[in-house]
Amino acid sequence: MIRFEPSKNDILETYERIKNLIHRTPLLTSESLNQMFGCMLYFKCENFQKAGAFKFRGASNAVLSLNKNDLIKGVITHSSGNHAAALSLAARMKNVPAYIVMPNTAPEIKKKAVAAYGAKITFSEPTVKSREETAKKIADQTGATFIHPYDNYTIIAGQSTCAKEIFEEVDDLDYLISPVGGAGLVSGSCLSAYHFSNRTKVIGAEPKGADDAFRSLRDKTIYPSINPNTICDGLLTQLCDKTYLILTKYLYEIITIEDHVTINAMKIIWQRMKIIVEPSSAITLGVVMNNPDKFRNKKVGLILSGGNADLDKLPWQKKF
Amino acid sequence: MIRFEPSKNDILETYERIKNLIHRTPLLTSESLNQMFGCMLYFKCENFQKAGAFKFRGASNAVLSLNKNDLIKGVITHSSGNHAAALSLAARMKNVPAYIVMPNTAPEIKKKAVAAYGAKITFSEPTVKSREETAKKIADQTGATFIHPYDNYTIIAGQSTCAKEIFEEVDDLDYLISPVGGAGLVSGSCLSAYHFSNRTKVIGAEPKGADDAFRSLRDKTIYPSINPNTICDGLLTQLCDKTYLILTKYLYEIITIEDHVTINAMKIIWQRMKIIVEPSSAITLGVVMNNPDKFRNKKVGLILSGGNADLDKLPWQKKF
Repeated sequence: MIRFEPSKNDILETYERIKNLIHRTPLLTSESLNQMFGCMLYFKCENFQKAGAFKFRGASNAVLSLNKNDLIKGVITHSSGNHAAALSLAARMKNVPAYIVMPNTAPEIKKKAVAAYGAKITFSEPTVKSREETAKKIADQTGATFIHPYDNYTIIAGQSTCAKEIFEEVDDLDYLISPVGGAGLVSGSCLSAYHFSNRTKVIGAEPKGADDAFRSLRDKTIYPSINPNTICDGLLTQLCDKTYLILTKYLYEIITIEDHVTINAMKIIWQRMKIIVEPSSAITLGVVMNNPDKFRNKKVGLILSGGNADLDKLPWQKKF
Repeated sequence: MIRFEPSKNDILETYERIKNLIHRTPLLTSESLNQMFGCMLYFKCENFQKAGAFKFRGASNAVLSLNKNDLIKGVITHSSGNHAAALSLAARMKNVPAYIVMPNTAPEIKKKAVAAYGAKITFSEPTVKSREETAKKIADQTGATFIHPYDNYTIIAGQSTCAKEIFEEVDDLDYLISPVGGAGLVSGSCLSAYHFSNRTKVIGAEPKGADDAFRSLRDKTIYPSINPNTICDGLLTQLCDKTYLILTKYLYEIITIEDHVTINAMKIIWQRMKIIVEPSSAITLGVVMNNPDKFRNKKVGLILSGGNADLDKLPWQKKF
């Protein structure tokens, strides 16, 4: 397990550890979107990652980093969904148990995905407190190692491999936009930008209805995420010390986006690129749509973090 | 223009002519779908082709094959949508006019796509007779060259490049499944299987509610497509002499599929592969789902012919 802010060498070792387990996802471009927004967009398609989201990078790094004695007892986590599915799949690949605490409000599609990977699911109330207490109890009973979705340098190092792959293909991006929830992905993206690019500014995209990270960085204190209200169900969580410190050091800025913009961005990606992304991914294009002057003629990377959208409830078909 | 059944050399020349204009689309695999259906599936993603469908291959071949005098007067066609969009885009790339006759029943998304490519649209009744008469009148007025969606060897040669690309990547497919409408794509696929593979059997996938091609081959006569009733809006048209003769010579068989199977297949592709395909594409997976014994442990290519689905009307949300 990685005990300090992941170094360049930590990230390189992480990539060697997981590269045969993860998909190297494509970096797609779209002429029609480039024309529409007047810039050069590079979409990193983690919606095609195993278990449908970037979370599999961190989860597989965490599982592969356990020693034999710990590995056999399995892993446990609480998660709104994608981390849970990813950890379950990584555990199944090593034939060890995964115990998952999920909020009872999680989308059906994510509950089903976790169950399909053979994890043992326990439901909790959708509060941070209830999740954590439930998980602690199960960890005490089973001896499973708790793998936090982002308050964990091994996880952050895993997520950093996403941006590392981007910079291997395009090393002169002006900006790299990543969604911000608990900030594991954007923290890892910052580290890879620092170590593997020397000019790319990393921007976090956060829902206006869950803007605790934006306020935390502005006011230099970690705010809890209280009653977040957004369609981006992967971005409900709050910063932790580890991600707060990395963002403070390396992040260029956070831009907040209203859900109606994210929904519009999501529909444009589906229509034009013919790929399925969830709202928490589409918010990155929302940042470009809302700030045309900033991005005009720039080379911009966008991390499409996952594709686990509920196909029975499309947001543009609901009233807001 | 190609005047006889395209030869191996015609296909090779066609590919050289259009290869810099078209996308070489990916051939995707999915571990979870392979497990689900017990065979090895290779999905040729023409949903990622320019204008969202394989039709751009034939259309660009047709436009690039015109002599200078004809080219400047432009092109005209009638089409339920994807051919129209493809021809409009190919014409715009050469800065010549495209005149499009569309049935007034065409999906909104396809009308908009054609309009966005700058074509001049005329609406007709949704009958073959009305389409053809309207197109003839405009051709006479403008001198534009009529480019039939499939009753045209230059178009068929263009569509054949799709299967050619598949065989360049996987040359030992047991089966290649292509949708059947007017049969331009499946005819081209048959020709490429004959010239570039020596064992792949080509199967046509046709909706049960529009099974004129199935009946035509069975009864050795070309039946018209009368009141077709299917969600596969790209597969409403009937065979012509050219495609009938090619299918008679080279096609292994046609399998017909009910719409509810196609809808289920479409949802599975969206959910598992995170890509958007239209019903006329998903029918190819429907063939595999309905015939598990036939395809077990086989290597099967499926042409996902297009991705122009109407995101406001998802078929699994309607009652049938």
